This record gives sequence, structure tokens and C-alpha cells, in this order.
Amino acid sequence: MQVGNKNYQSIWLDESDPSVVRVIDQQKLPFSFEICELRSVEDIYNAIKEMTVRGAPLIGAAGAYAIYLATLEMNPATDPWHHLNNASRYISSCRPTAVNLSWAVNYVMEKIKSLPSGKSLSEAALEAAGEVCRLEIENCRSIGSYGLPLIEEISLKKNGAPVNILTHCNAGWLACIDYGTVTAPIYFAHEAGIAVHVWVDETRPRNQGARLTAWELQQAGVPHTLIADNTGGHLMQHEMVDIVLVGCDRATRNGDVANKIGTYLKALAAKDNNIPFYSVLPSTSIDMSISDGLTGIPVEERDPEEVTTISGSSGGKIINVHICPENTTAKNYGFDVTPARLITGLITEKGICRAEEKEIVKLFSEKI
Amino acid sequence: MQVGNKNYQSIWLDESDPSVVRVIDQQKLPFSFEICELRSVEDIYNAIKEMTVRGAPLIGAAGAYAIYLATLEMNPATDPWHHLNNASRYISSCRPTAVNLSWAVNYVMEKIKSLPSGKSLSEAALEAAGEVCRLEIENCRSIGSYGLPLIEEISLKKNGAPVNILTHCNAGWLACIDYGTVTAPIYFAHEAGIAVHVWVDETRPRNQGARLTAWELQQAGVPHTLIADNTGGHLMQHEMVDIVLVGCDRATRNGDVANKIGTYLKALAAKDNNIPFYSVLPSTSIDMSISDGLTGIPVEERDPEEVTTISGSSGGKIINVHICPENTTAKNYGFDVTPARLITGLITEKGICRAEEKEIVKLFSEKI
Repeated sequence: MQVGNKNYQSIWLDESDPSVVRVIDQQKLPFSFEICELRSVEDIYNAIKEMTVRGAPLIGAAGAYAIYLATLEMNPATDPWHHLNNASRYISSCRPTAVNLSWAVNYVMEKIKSLPSGKSLSEAALEAAGEVCRLEIENCRSIGSYGLPLIEEISLKKNGAPVNILTHCNAGWLACIDYGTVTAPIYFAHEAGIAVHVWVDETRPRNQGARLTAWELQQAGVPHTLIADNTGGHLMQHEMVDIVLVGCDRATRNGDVANKIGTYLKALAAKDNNIPFYSVLPSTSIDMSISDGLTGIPVEERDPEEVTTISGSSGGKIINVHICPENTTAKNYGFDVTPARLITGLITEKGICRAEEKEIVKLFSEKI
Repeated sequence: MQVGNKNYQSIWLDESDPSVVRVIDQQKLPFSFEICELRSVEDIYNAIKEMTVRGAPLIGAAGAYAIYLATLEMNPATDPWHHLNNASRYISSCRPTAVNLSWAVNYVMEKIKSLPSGKSLSEAALEAAGEVCRLEIENCRSIGSYGLPLIEEISLKKNGAPVNILTHCNAGWLACIDYGTVTAPIYFAHEAGIAVHVWVDETRPRNQGARLTAWELQQAGVPHTLIADNTGGHLMQHEMVDIVLVGCDRATRNGDVANKIGTYLKALAAKDNNIPFYSVLPSTSIDMSISDGLTGIPVEERDPEEVTTISGSSGGKIINVHICPENTTAKNYGFDVTPARLITGLITEKGICRAEEKEIVKLFSEKI
């Protein structure tokens, strides 16, 4: 997507130095647009852990590049597969909820295990990481084309008045390499001249909505309004939301969806007010091995300091402020699970389906 | 309540200077404990508007004192009733949602209109403002005694394991002069040796939970944990909440309740997980003139800057940081309305009743 006059993806291999993976530093946005250099498995682990890169598809891609960097770090004296398996386990353990991470790491590992003749492990890993990125970009584009008619339909019903879309967290191009999952239909609608307006949930504790989604939409010129996470229910009660579109860190075979903490509350409000609620996801976020999301999906617990503090800008600097009494303890669950019964449908790269096992299995039969 | 070794209420008349009303500055807590002097109707208007004093019962009490201060500001050349009626309208317009403000202002105005012989307007207004304060304190104490058995009962069922209470915003003694509404049963339970643990919703945008409720509970030694507003649903899904207790800015005769924005989302989650959800309120928060909360209760819209910024402490100073891109627009609705159908009951100074017209009318027949 465009940032100023330049086109960016949220991860890429350095053009002049193939031992460097570059990412947009999502900890610095929107206050500063900076590019980070990741030169080792450890660098990628830390970037994912600290959320310099975040978003299910992007951490998958970062994990894929980690295996490539691992091939560059091999000591000729040790067994390469011992080294690579260790790197694979290490990177996969970095964040537990998004299934894309282990999927992408496994994808690259499988590709290099069946190494074509004449190729080095590094060449094969780099090729596979590139495939992961291209696949996710293509997934987003396809999701955009399937999601667009939903927005068009509402626009028609409203005689062209702006379609009010509520979203939580950031499932934009920053999270997904390019286009985004939730944002792809929105960007496509905006480009097609359909009036849209996005309610952007702040998304405490890490404020991905206020910091990243607001920034993305501002770059793209899409009208939007920032709200506290508490506000969506009130808006829905007063017919100020036409559709809710949220991302996904892991969906189960029966259609339960883990997404950023607070998603479940918006799903309840959408249901209570008869507003369509869609989870937007590539099939790389589906975990066919789990049936019950509430008991089956591991929910990451993060540093309580993300709750007791907030970072923002003051006088041109990024500052962390403490927002509660000294020594207050906090809990910081990163995700919640929205049960399938609250979800109108899943918008995927293969089309839209109901959040139920039969339809998911039919659409993604190759995943079984 | 105790702060250090000293007993405080959240509003009082200065002992040595009866032209000064004193309040705890709730904009500075928890980073600094400071007392403000309010010397005029204008001072009280600004203190309420800027939330130096906040919480439905407390802004009622502050409004009552404003009429007293208005009697001290009278110019002998003008009609006293013209002056007092103007002051009354001015103060009542300051914040629209909490009905306590207009109730308390009217209470004082009525008292001074029927001035007993031998008393000055100022003496009568001061006496009436004192009555408002004593009434609200007594209400809280009574609410505490009615709410306590609910907590006791859960404690018994759990064989003494801590009763997990989730609350939103601050309906503590700071908001209610003394004891608090939501906190009274909690303080009483804690004093009675019942193990309780409170999940404190941060309560963006103004963070009354993180700043005030966490501070209050810390002062009182009540175990508590701060969480992002997004977290309550997840906790309820995983049986980590036994009961939800929230305050009230205005209840209707049919039991709909306006409270801090985000309350409705917690009520939906409580309903979805079969967890008791109580609104805790004195009868001064009931507006018998309204039947439908969603259409009838005015919801205050506040400065968007409360959403685009957060204040916190850094290096011993209170600093405001900007949390989104420059020029991002925001909307800031202060309250939402929880429909009666989601409310298990109302805990009031007259007892506990279901959130329905018949029971409310029966309990508060004198209000009709």
C-alpha cells in the first residue's frame, strides 16, 4: 500500500543485502515511520514478541523468514536439521494464539525438507518464505473481492449514504503484508467510489486500532472515527453501525474465532442489535484440529505492564505513562474467543461461508 | 473513608471559612492527592464539567453546594430569585446524564423557597446541601447492608474462596461522598472477613477504574486486579467472574440504566454467561419520568480529546500523551444504556428489586 509516494509491504527482503529482512516498525507508528532490520532468528523472535511485527498473517510471514535466516546461521560442524528444527520450535513458541505462525514455519520446513536438486537450503527457504508472502497477499485480494459485495449491498439499501463499518484491532495491510483482511473489502469499496466510514476501536491495551488502523485509513483517505473500546455497543444500539468486520488469529473447524481481546463483546452487541458480524480471515488462520474454540485455542497472556501503562506521543517524543496507582497488579489476556453462534459469516479467500463445521469443511476440504 | 490516617469524604464545607467548599481533586488521583477549593458557582460548574468532581451522587452534592454558594454571590440590587433560578439552571445544565444533579439542585431550591422564619437563604441552602450529603452517605450505607448478603451467599457457595466481582468505572466513595454504591457491599464484605477480589475495568476514555477504583481499593486493602475494558467477556467465559456490580447515572421507571459507556457490553457478557449483573444505585438516581432509557435518557457527548489522548504519570509528573495520528477525529459518548432485560436486579437503599416497573414503583412509591 502507499505510504506517501512509495509502495510498501509490511515485510520484505532487503534488495541489496539478502541476509536482511526488513519490516515496518509497528511499535513506532503512527508517531514515526521507521524500517527495522532483522538479521537473525533472534531478531525475528524479538520483533514478534515485542509486536514490532504483529497480525496473524504477518507473524506467519516473519516466522517463514526466520527459517530462511536460520539457514544462514548454520554452523557447518553441527547437524543442519537439528539446528533448523530448534529454530522452528523456537519461533513457533513465540506467540501461541495465531495459528499462522506455526503454519508458515511448517510450510517452509516442509518445502526445504523436500529440497529440489540443485538448490541450497537457503535458496529453498527464501523461495518458500516468498511464497508465504505472495499467498497471503493473494488471499487478502481475494477476500477483498468477496467482501466488497457485502458493503455494496448495504450502500444500495442506504441509497449511497456512508456504510458504517466497525472494526476492532488492526487487520489491515500492516497485519497482512498488503491490503489487509478486514481492510481489503473496505479499500476496494472506497476505490470503487462507495461511501464508507469506519469506527475504529482504540483496542487497549496495545492500541492497534488508535495507532495502526487509524494511521492506515488516514494514509488511504478512508473516512474514519476513533472510539474507545467501550463505545461500540452504544453505537450499535443507535443504528450507527451497519456491519462489523473483525480479523482472526485462529478459527476452529466449527467456526469459533479467536481474535484480539474484546472482539467477543462486540459480537454480543452485534447479535443483540441484529447487525451482521463477520470474521475476515485467510484459510491460513483456520485450525482444523480444534473443534471447541473456548477450550481448545490457547489464549496468550502478556506482560501486565501493557495494561498499567500506555505509550503515546508528547512534544515529538514517544513516552510511556503509568495510568494507575504504583504497584497496582493487572492481568493482560491478549485474545478472546467469539463462539460461532454469534458470527454471521466468515469472509475468506475462497468465499463467504457460515461459521459452522459443514460449510467450513466444504470450502476448505484440502485442509483436512 | 480513610486516606492514610485521616478520614475523608469527597466533598465538605471548609471548617474555618464557610464560603469555601472543598473537594478531593479527582483529576489528580492517583498520582497526587490534592484538595481543591471551590468558591463560586462558576468554580463548581468547572469542577463538575472537567470532572474534578464526578460520580452521580457527588455531582448532585456539588450542585447542592453551588446553590448555597449562589446565595453568597447575590447582589442586593437584583432579584434574589432571578439570580438563584439562573444559578440553578446553569449548574443543572453542566452534565446532562446523571439525574442526581438536577434532583439535588431542585431539592435545595425547594427547601429555600419554603424558607423557615428566622433563617437566611444562605443558612437554609447550606442546611439543605448538608442534608443531600448525609442522605447520600446514608443511602450508601444502606445499599451496603442490602448488597452484602449477595456476596456472602456466593462466598458460602464457593466455600470461602474469593468472590470475584467485576466493576466498571468508579462507583466508590469518591463518586458518592462516602462508602460508595458499588463499593459499599464490597467494603462491608471485606470488613466482615469475606474474601473478595475485584476486577477493575480501566474505563477508557477517562480511566476512572484504573485511576480511582484501583486507588480506593488499594487504600482499603481490598484485593483487586486492573484489566483493559476489553477483558471482562473473556473472564466471564472462563468462570473468573462471580458477580458484576456497576453504578448508575440514571435509571428509568422500567429499570433501564444509564451508566458509564461500556456498561452495556459487560451486561451482555454477563447475560451470555449466566452471571448475575446488578446495578447499584440510590433512589436519587431514579428518574420516574422516563420509561424507555434508550430513547429517553440524554447521553452526554464529551470532548474527543479525551479519546485521542491519555493522561498518566511519567517521572513524577502528570503528562498528557497523544495516542493516535495527528488530526484523527474521535467521538466520545460518555454513557450507554443497559436495557432492564439484561439486569438481574437493582441494589438500592430500600432493598433489592428486579429491574421492572412494578417492583421499582412499589419500592419507591414516594417518588411518583
